[in-house]
Amino acid sequence: MPDNATPLDVELAAERLRGVAHRTPVLQSSIINELVGADVYFKCENFQRCGAFKFRGAYNTLSQFTPEQRRTGVVAYSGGNHAQGIALSARILDMPATIVMPSDSPTAKIAATREYGATIVHYDRATESREAIAADIAATSGATVVPSFDHPHVIAGQGTVAKELFEEVGTLDTVFVPVGGGGLLAGTLLAAENSSPSTDVYGVEPESGNDAQQSLQKGEIVRIPTPPTIADGASTSFIGDYTFEIMRDRVRGILTATDDELVNALKLFCTYMKIVVEPTGCLGLAAALSSKNLVEGRRIGIIVSGGNVDLDRLGRLLAGS
Amino acid sequence: MPDNATPLDVELAAERLRGVAHRTPVLQSSIINELVGADVYFKCENFQRCGAFKFRGAYNTLSQFTPEQRRTGVVAYSGGNHAQGIALSARILDMPATIVMPSDSPTAKIAATREYGATIVHYDRATESREAIAADIAATSGATVVPSFDHPHVIAGQGTVAKELFEEVGTLDTVFVPVGGGGLLAGTLLAAENSSPSTDVYGVEPESGNDAQQSLQKGEIVRIPTPPTIADGASTSFIGDYTFEIMRDRVRGILTATDDELVNALKLFCTYMKIVVEPTGCLGLAAALSSKNLVEGRRIGIIVSGGNVDLDRLGRLLAGS
Repeated sequence: MPDNATPLDVELAAERLRGVAHRTPVLQSSIINELVGADVYFKCENFQRCGAFKFRGAYNTLSQFTPEQRRTGVVAYSGGNHAQGIALSARILDMPATIVMPSDSPTAKIAATREYGATIVHYDRATESREAIAADIAATSGATVVPSFDHPHVIAGQGTVAKELFEEVGTLDTVFVPVGGGGLLAGTLLAAENSSPSTDVYGVEPESGNDAQQSLQKGEIVRIPTPPTIADGASTSFIGDYTFEIMRDRVRGILTATDDELVNALKLFCTYMKIVVEPTGCLGLAAALSSKNLVEGRRIGIIVSGGNVDLDRLGRLLAGS
Repeated sequence: MPDNATPLDVELAAERLRGVAHRTPVLQSSIINELVGADVYFKCENFQRCGAFKFRGAYNTLSQFTPEQRRTGVVAYSGGNHAQGIALSARILDMPATIVMPSDSPTAKIAATREYGATIVHYDRATESREAIAADIAATSGATVVPSFDHPHVIAGQGTVAKELFEEVGTLDTVFVPVGGGGLLAGTLLAAENSSPSTDVYGVEPESGNDAQQSLQKGEIVRIPTPPTIADGASTSFIGDYTFEIMRDRVRGILTATDDELVNALKLFCTYMKIVVEPTGCLGLAAALSSKNLVEGRRIGIIVSGGNVDLDRLGRLLAGS
């Protein structure tokens, strides 16, 4: 097991990503500032390549492969943003990529991943284990498995989001970060240690899937059934060993948001900022709106993790207004 | 009748708007470039104050009021973006504003206009004339009526959109501009004359409401019934005297787009650029996608005029996908 990521690793990841990942914009809205009662800076990773922060961790990991690893390529399992991040990174670095995706993934996501040149292997969610399939592929092809969050290089790559935010707006009192497996949160904690050590960093997860909150309370990783939530990027059953280790000592707390709160935040993004945010990317704003005591009068950062949402689903969420 | 706007007036308007209007971003998407077959620069006025370019023309006009005009204030009639642009400009310039709005305007638009401090006067679309009501208010209060497009100062203000676009990306082969009453198109034509004189500027209007196209063909302003289109910002029945005069000699042509083409463009904006655009703001992309012969291999600019669309309506448009 390699050493965990450090604040220095985030700096090195930023060098690797320079000119490859987009430096995404930091946006503000005076109306949302009024609603939150704070000076809010949104770091908009919905404008990142592939539409989500995941590209950063994927590219940071693949760009450190040895020549032998590059030849045999990468295998990853993901129905979502990690798949596309790996596929695009592999194409940029000219290595083969195999993505294990649920056979019921949305057609658009499968098509996008294939367009990046990856080989798609389907599996049945109900009866097959994606981990086992990926391990099989790795064993026979020699490809390297890259997990979607629990890897030091992935964590360091995700930390570049917050590093850019602090570079752009200076120190912040509080930062809110969506939590699925904890890669983005762990990276943010490392970035803050370097760039804004007095910042209170909070993770935010769906109320129905508060495994990170439970894990921190209990002092060990708690596993839960796949939570029912519209925040599909945060519908993980457990956080990782690496991400937990970083979180444990550094995070100020884990907050939660209900699906209704996420839909409300999504509508605010559309109405006042004219941006499309996926439900998972709404976790930070939802928490800020319901945590007046933590934010009032402060300078706060909110990481908008991505914007990949099926239009049909987005339409149904908005039309309920 | 004052003199018409000139290219110099656009330069002067830019000075007045400096630090008041947002300098909106110019965005690109590699996937949309591939779909259009051109190098496309989107000037995103959906990120403008009040969510649309209309703020520019409103502020440019109100900021040139005499002290006496400022005291008596402004009256405008609009159910849409002009109302909010006038209301916010009046608040910034500390003058009274009265907005004549249809009584069936969406609650959100009425609320937003009132929040800017404007007095709202409702009228019944079916039985009353908003022009007559505005004229009455002007006669009794001394307020100045500011039309939504047919005024030299309004036109000059709208021209600053294209001026910024040319400043940011240099000369362009072709620019597509939505056309309602023609204020944005006329302003763009003046800006191009200064900043990129070889550019072919095309107006784009809804297929069901091609009064500008007919007017140019006939050589005089043609009036049509209010067209049925989802592009509410371009559902005008006729273009203006000032806007027609500028268009007549300078515009390369008027193209049209169907509602289906607008919905397709709206979905592309959401999917690949993660931005919310109102149907009227989709006219340029819709035309570019259906005019391969005009755009192939060229450097083209598309003006995204605004992003104000009711979420319920947006949801229904997207959920049909």
